[in-house]
Formats: sequence, structure tokens, C-alpha cells
Amino acid sequence: MTVVHPKQPPDNGDGSPTGEDAALERIGTRLKSRLGTPPPGETWSGDDAAVVVLPGRLESATLLLSTDAVVAGVHVDLSLVTLADVGWKALTVAVSDIGAMGGTPAHALVSVSAPPGTDLEELADGIAEAAQHWCCPVVGGDLSRAEQLVVTVSVTGTLTGPGPAVHRSGAKPGDGLFVTGPLGASAAGLRQLRDRAQSGAAVDAVLVQAHRRPDARLAEGRAARDAGATAMMDLSDGLGLDLHRLARASGVGFALDAVPIVDGATPDEALGGGEDYELLVAAPDEQRLAGTFAARDLRLPVRIGVCTGDASEGRLGTEPFDPTGYQHRI
Amino acid sequence: MTVVHPKQPPDNGDGSPTGEDAALERIGTRLKSRLGTPPPGETWSGDDAAVVVLPGRLESATLLLSTDAVVAGVHVDLSLVTLADVGWKALTVAVSDIGAMGGTPAHALVSVSAPPGTDLEELADGIAEAAQHWCCPVVGGDLSRAEQLVVTVSVTGTLTGPGPAVHRSGAKPGDGLFVTGPLGASAAGLRQLRDRAQSGAAVDAVLVQAHRRPDARLAEGRAARDAGATAMMDLSDGLGLDLHRLARASGVGFALDAVPIVDGATPDEALGGGEDYELLVAAPDEQRLAGTFAARDLRLPVRIGVCTGDASEGRLGTEPFDPTGYQHRI
Repeated sequence: MTVVHPKQPPDNGDGSPTGEDAALERIGTRLKSRLGTPPPGETWSGDDAAVVVLPGRLESATLLLSTDAVVAGVHVDLSLVTLADVGWKALTVAVSDIGAMGGTPAHALVSVSAPPGTDLEELADGIAEAAQHWCCPVVGGDLSRAEQLVVTVSVTGTLTGPGPAVHRSGAKPGDGLFVTGPLGASAAGLRQLRDRAQSGAAVDAVLVQAHRRPDARLAEGRAARDAGATAMMDLSDGLGLDLHRLARASGVGFALDAVPIVDGATPDEALGGGEDYELLVAAPDEQRLAGTFAARDLRLPVRIGVCTGDASEGRLGTEPFDPTGYQHRI
Repeated sequence: MTVVHPKQPPDNGDGSPTGEDAALERIGTRLKSRLGTPPPGETWSGDDAAVVVLPGRLESATLLLSTDAVVAGVHVDLSLVTLADVGWKALTVAVSDIGAMGGTPAHALVSVSAPPGTDLEELADGIAEAAQHWCCPVVGGDLSRAEQLVVTVSVTGTLTGPGPAVHRSGAKPGDGLFVTGPLGASAAGLRQLRDRAQSGAAVDAVLVQAHRRPDARLAEGRAARDAGATAMMDLSDGLGLDLHRLARASGVGFALDAVPIVDGATPDEALGGGEDYELLVAAPDEQRLAGTFAARDLRLPVRIGVCTGDASEGRLGTEPFDPTGYQHRI
């Protein structure tokens, strides 16, 4: 079982889709050829969550749907984190996808494939803790034997109030780009856990906690949607890779001024580390965004740059900003 | 990678929950201690699908939610079936769970964990074929690297017309017990595929197809619900095990007269083989059930016995009928 460091050079460095993205695109093409395109009001793959419509007698209901797997040895290193941490993380990264659409998670399904002897109760404790914390009860599940632990969480979500979900594809030239907090904590925490395992070095509890028990920015996602965000996604694979995804989906370029780095993290960890689950937000009205966050006692989003009209542009200061981050080799 | 034959003796033979059931119950207890019990109108774990309520402005919407994983080497033998078969099966067994509640599948999420080099396009073709066949588009997904292929499909479903979903727990003493078709085809097909691989023996195309491309009894599930079925589930783990589950959930016993066996299957394959995905139905009014099926041009359900008031009773003819079937060793 090999553990891949979150910061991996992508399969190619030219901004074209790499590894997981490319595989997902190929699969998407195969599905689309049979299943057609979504009906009006729906958006399927390509965002943090799908938006679907359930017709009712009196009104139709908009539903957000998302699924995410946490694989031991790939997404988590069981020699560094507990099974309860894995459970927390699996549930949290799934609800984070709902938050990144501006939605509120409603219900979770958990499918566990595990080697015999896995402490399923410890895993369940972490799942339950997160489900309680994010008000997203686990309503069903599935359990099978496997050689490697895989925890797959699917989540439904709803949109409160009027207006559509916030997709990745809505950013316009001139929109400000924001993140909901400083980056790099998870990657720095992972580095410290490894150092401690090897040499007994001291760790920073805050960074380690960020790696073991990530937060989902649900209230922030709702606030950004209410404040007119045009595009949004959660930073699961690192700003470098994820920002390129948002820009590509929106058909814009970007110019970054500066990126907030968490105390104790390196610039590489902040830009390419991934797993921070802070939100990346494009919004035209910075004052409205800040005002909405302030009115809800949320930490103010940090402006990191602006969307530009040249889709080939991507820079940090005067330097080109290449996609870096975590991509599974498939 | 070991392949477990569907027909495995359960961990114990006294009717008490075994293996997967027991593990799920332990996990359920941990979740319940934190998450509490479902609100009115909702039922969570313990059925083929969960029933949840999404509040709306004008009306609330009932949603069915289910998730199922197919693990290579556990649920499928990749030396005997294709990746397209695996994709078909993963999608189909998930929609079967919605059908077993009397619902109609609406949308699917697919999470794939796969070893590098897996032909994801072939897998996607099988998923798409099934999604098209069952009118259940794949609206989102997730892809990660893993040592072993795990395909997890989560499905939403709706209920058309009035009345609640059909649970496992509603059977009453005196209700007839029915199956929607003869049993054992999948296990017999698997046996033939193995024989062919070992000795080049001829296979029966119908049986092999039943193993490689199982059906989901969606129209039958809706018809049974409309005809007043009191309890229902799909036969994924074999009649022996699944009937005990339904009886246990309903607090009834059962007396079976005869079980229809598909041509070419053994009695053991029919009772314990599993993966038939025919529906097991309890219903008080056989005429109404048959009439509803006939009016919709569906194969008539076959009466196999009756629910009894003695919850400890379980027999086939005059013999005790022990639970047998497929249980993952966890």
C-alpha cells in the first residue's frame, strides 16, 4: 500500500486536463452518448455536486447530489490517522461538495468496503460525529469485504431561498476571486505527522487537526451564494489545480495578487497541497460579499485576485501559475 | 484476490443475525446514539432503501435513497465477466433496491475506485447501458485509484401516486408470500461459467445472462405496491437469508409450500445462491396482486407460502428452513 503525497506534479503542466480529470471526461463522453444531456434546470457531472429536479404535484424540488470516496493508502494514511478520523473525513468532504454549491446537506449514504478485522465501530464513530456536526444524518449504507478500506459517502442537499446553485462555470471577467481562509494547513499537518512518525518531532495541534478533521465551509457557501457569487468550488486538490478547473469551466483567465498561507505551511503546501476544503469564490461585488459574511459572523473571505477575459491567462503576480495539486493516476 | 462462492454457510445457523447483518446492526447502534431516530415519515437503515422527506414551500417530497457496492473478487469474478458486466450489475443492483420499495429510480451517482490500467471506458459503457435501460441517468461521480476495483452506486428514487413505500417490516400473519419469478438462475449461471473456464463445458445462455446482466424488477415492485403489498425486498442474498430478514423485521414466521426453481438450477442455488434480484412480496390479497400484475402485462407472481403468527416458525413443507445465502465475512 503506497501513500501518495498530496503534492504531486500533474501528468502534464500545460493547463490541459490531467489524470483524473481526463479519465472523468472520457467516461462522461461515454455516458453522454447513451444518456443524453441534462433536462432544463439540471446540471450533471463537472461540478462539486449535480443539480437535479424532482417533479412534484404542486412544485418541483431542486436536489443536490454528490459522492466521494476515501481510499486508505491513497487519501489517508492509516499509520498517521485513526479510523475515526477517516470516518469524519469521508463524511465531511462529501458535505463540503454540497456547501460548495451554496447548498445545505440533507442526508448521507455510506458504503464501506473493508478488510476483515477493520474496527468498523471506530469508523462509524467518526462518521457519526461528522454527521451530527454537519446536521446530515446517515440514513443508509452498505458493507462489503475488500482488501483495502474504501469509504464512499453520497450526500443529498437542498437550496434554501430563491436562486440557483453556484456552479464552477459562472465566473465572469472582472469578478473578484476569494478564498474563505488561509491555505496549506492540511498538507502541513500531514508533513508534521510524518516527521513525528519518523523522528518524533513536535507537531502543531492546529495543523494536525486540519489534516485529521477537516472543516466544511457550509455557512460560508450559503453566504457566498446569497451574496451573488458567480462561481464556487471547494479546494480539495489544491488551489493551483482547482483554480484552473474553475477558470476553464468559466472560460476566463485569472490574475492572482497574493494567496493567504496558514502559519506553519509552505507556499507549495498552500498552492498545491490540497485537502483544505476552503471555498474558492468568484464574485463581482466584494462589498456585498464581505457584508453578508460579516452579518453572519463568518470570517471574511480573502481576495486573492481577479478573473480576466483572456482564458489562456493564469498568473500569480507577474509569474505564470501552473496547475499543481493532487491527481490520482488512473 | 479470492472469489467467494455466493452459496456460503452463514456464520451461524440459528436464525440470529450473521456477519454483515450483525456488523451493520453494531454500526447502526453507534450512529443512532449520536444521530437519534428518524423524524416522522422517515425510515433509515434496515430496508432496501431509506425513505426521507424533503420539506418544500408548498409540499414535502418523499425521496428514496440507496447505495450498493460491487467489489471485484467478492461480488464479481473478473475472469468470468467483463467490466461492462460489472458496470451493468453495479447500476442494476442499486436501482433494484429502489424497486423493492415500490419506487421508481430517479438519479444515480457512481463512485469508482480502480487499479491503474482498468478499462474505465468499458466499465462506463456497462453503467451507461444499465442507466439507459432503467431510465436512471448517472448525474455525478467520483474516481480514485485503489488496489481493487470497487464500484459504488447510490440511487435516488421517488414514489408515484399515493401511499407509502413498502418496507420489509409490514408483513402480517396470514399474508401470502410471493416471488416475482423462479430462482437460482444467477448462481447456476456462475457455476456454468466456472465449469466452462475449467473444462470448456457448454453453458446455457439464459443462465449466464442472468448472472452477468441481472434484471431489476421495477415494474413488478410498483405493481406490488399498488396492489397492497405489506412487505417487500429484493432477493440479493438468497431466499433463505432474505426471507428470514423479512420475517424478522415483520415479527412473523413463515410456512413455505414450494419454491419455483429456474430450469437448470439446483435447489441449493435457488434457495441459497442469491443475486437473483427477483422480489419477495408479502400481500394479503392474492387476487388483487395477480390482477394488478396481469393488467400491466407482467409475469404473475408465484405464491410460495404464507406468513404465520409464530415468529420462531420457519419451514419449507414440513422441514425447518434455515437461513442460507451469501454473507460477507466482516
